[in-house]
Amino acid sequence: MNDILRVGIVGYGNLGKGVELAILQNPDMELIAIFTRRQPDDLNTNSKVISISRIEDFKGKIDVMILCGGSAKDLPEQVIVISKLFNTVDSYDTHAKIPEYFKLVDETSRSSNKLSLISTGWDPGLFSMARLLGQSILPQGEDYTFWGKGLSQGHSDAVRRVPGVKNGVQYTIPIDSAIERVRAGENPQLSTAEKHQRVCYVVANEGANLSDIENNIIKMPHYFDEYQTTVNFINEEELLANHSGMPHGGVVFRSGITGNGSKQRIEFSLALESNPEFTASVLVAYTRAVGKMAKEGQIGARTVFDIPLGYLSPKSPEELRKSLL
Amino acid sequence: MNDILRVGIVGYGNLGKGVELAILQNPDMELIAIFTRRQPDDLNTNSKVISISRIEDFKGKIDVMILCGGSAKDLPEQVIVISKLFNTVDSYDTHAKIPEYFKLVDETSRSSNKLSLISTGWDPGLFSMARLLGQSILPQGEDYTFWGKGLSQGHSDAVRRVPGVKNGVQYTIPIDSAIERVRAGENPQLSTAEKHQRVCYVVANEGANLSDIENNIIKMPHYFDEYQTTVNFINEEELLANHSGMPHGGVVFRSGITGNGSKQRIEFSLALESNPEFTASVLVAYTRAVGKMAKEGQIGARTVFDIPLGYLSPKSPEELRKSLL
Repeated sequence: MNDILRVGIVGYGNLGKGVELAILQNPDMELIAIFTRRQPDDLNTNSKVISISRIEDFKGKIDVMILCGGSAKDLPEQVIVISKLFNTVDSYDTHAKIPEYFKLVDETSRSSNKLSLISTGWDPGLFSMARLLGQSILPQGEDYTFWGKGLSQGHSDAVRRVPGVKNGVQYTIPIDSAIERVRAGENPQLSTAEKHQRVCYVVANEGANLSDIENNIIKMPHYFDEYQTTVNFINEEELLANHSGMPHGGVVFRSGITGNGSKQRIEFSLALESNPEFTASVLVAYTRAVGKMAKEGQIGARTVFDIPLGYLSPKSPEELRKSLL
Repeated sequence: MNDILRVGIVGYGNLGKGVELAILQNPDMELIAIFTRRQPDDLNTNSKVISISRIEDFKGKIDVMILCGGSAKDLPEQVIVISKLFNTVDSYDTHAKIPEYFKLVDETSRSSNKLSLISTGWDPGLFSMARLLGQSILPQGEDYTFWGKGLSQGHSDAVRRVPGVKNGVQYTIPIDSAIERVRAGENPQLSTAEKHQRVCYVVANEGANLSDIENNIIKMPHYFDEYQTTVNFINEEELLANHSGMPHGGVVFRSGITGNGSKQRIEFSLALESNPEFTASVLVAYTRAVGKMAKEGQIGARTVFDIPLGYLSPKSPEELRKSLL
């Protein structure tokens, strides 16, 4: 066993809480502290909590910092400062801005000999790896990503903004018949709307007009109008009892042809009862990799495409070859 | 686009033929020659064929040599010689002897500054990677490998050795109820026999006693006696028409728990119409990786655990971050 890897967490939302729990499952790691913008005493945890303004005091005392903020504002702001002080891991997921974010992080981390892994988790992350693997092995073919069954935060927020809605959630669900066409090797052309349906569970305010609510949801531009959408009205107790979790998942397919026409199919799928806890577990495994690579002297920004899988494991290369190959 | 990667093939059985076809799907590679122990003129191909005794003449003319021989005898003999002359990729699959084989190849390739990737394909290979990924991300959990539906060469040979059998094939098929228990998150303890059934299609000699044949197959020690086995008698035309392919596949599951008890499941599955062609496609993608790594000056033996996925793709790291992450 190597030395214990000393880890810090920045941000204590759902993802940060998941990381705190995931570290407990990995005896080769120790959580040194959680850093927060809130009053440290306000956090409900037994871990050590430190104000983010004091993060620099921990230089040399933490090997890898896991950034658990949001991609819209938190990460771009924090990474500039923190990647100069620590090796970092984050789950930056604004797909369109990844090249720009990579460049930024590469410069800041390189300027002080630190290593930073960006955009890990499951999408971007494991699903990206599945797409890369599929395209590389079966160059003649198509790939398909289906998301769900999963709770969509953005769409749930949209539902809750509809007049007359007291509370609600939205699930994105893959359309079975579309999945079957892919499995059958038809290589169909499918839009996102042809691959997914949207199912809402809504608690209405007393006296609200239910058919108005339903219409406002179903016809909402961008969010729902192009999709097959179902609205179910339930009461608040039912919502709390059955719809408080954050399940998610999905499937990445690569469906291709080799040789003289043999159909070949690769599937990578996830079925998650807790999206933030799973994402956290991916971040923690990659934190181990960053710890090892930084020890070797590697610096700059990396993505999951740059990291040999063996680095994710607490086992030695010899042990991996013997027990897992 | 980089320079064209110059590739050689050693051995022209099903795997070598698959590699020949897979190279045609990858415009960044060129097949320079196939090396054989047979008379070169005996091979039915349009590619250049050279006697293996002349392989040394191609030093400096081939970047990576793909070894397509069998693991029992061919690979251990050939790799000692060839990994001193060329960078190599092979599909060595005798699981128990991999550590020993790795050590051997590491010494020979390192002694002449060559790079060798051993034991790639899908199992060992992609399935090994799925097991490693699952264990690293979900340390608290179980993994399960199911093979099939697939044609098993060894079991088909055993069926054909039974007295009264003219011809026959055997398929290994996962037991659906076992897969369902895993998907349900039960984390059951399952032996190989509890996970798979064996289905045989047999052509009997004229006048042979069918129930004797069936009994001899079903009770065959090691091969069949512990399994749920079905024997179907068919005629030779049917065998040729419906059972000449080499389909295979399987699923690797990791079923684990995170946080306060959330069930999480990762599945990686393959459905292959041609096992040798798919294995060949994996070898060819890893050949690209070996070409890039050798160019960087890397030497010695490697496994799939040591190779960043980005190296498998013909795309540049920038392009991968932009289009696939």
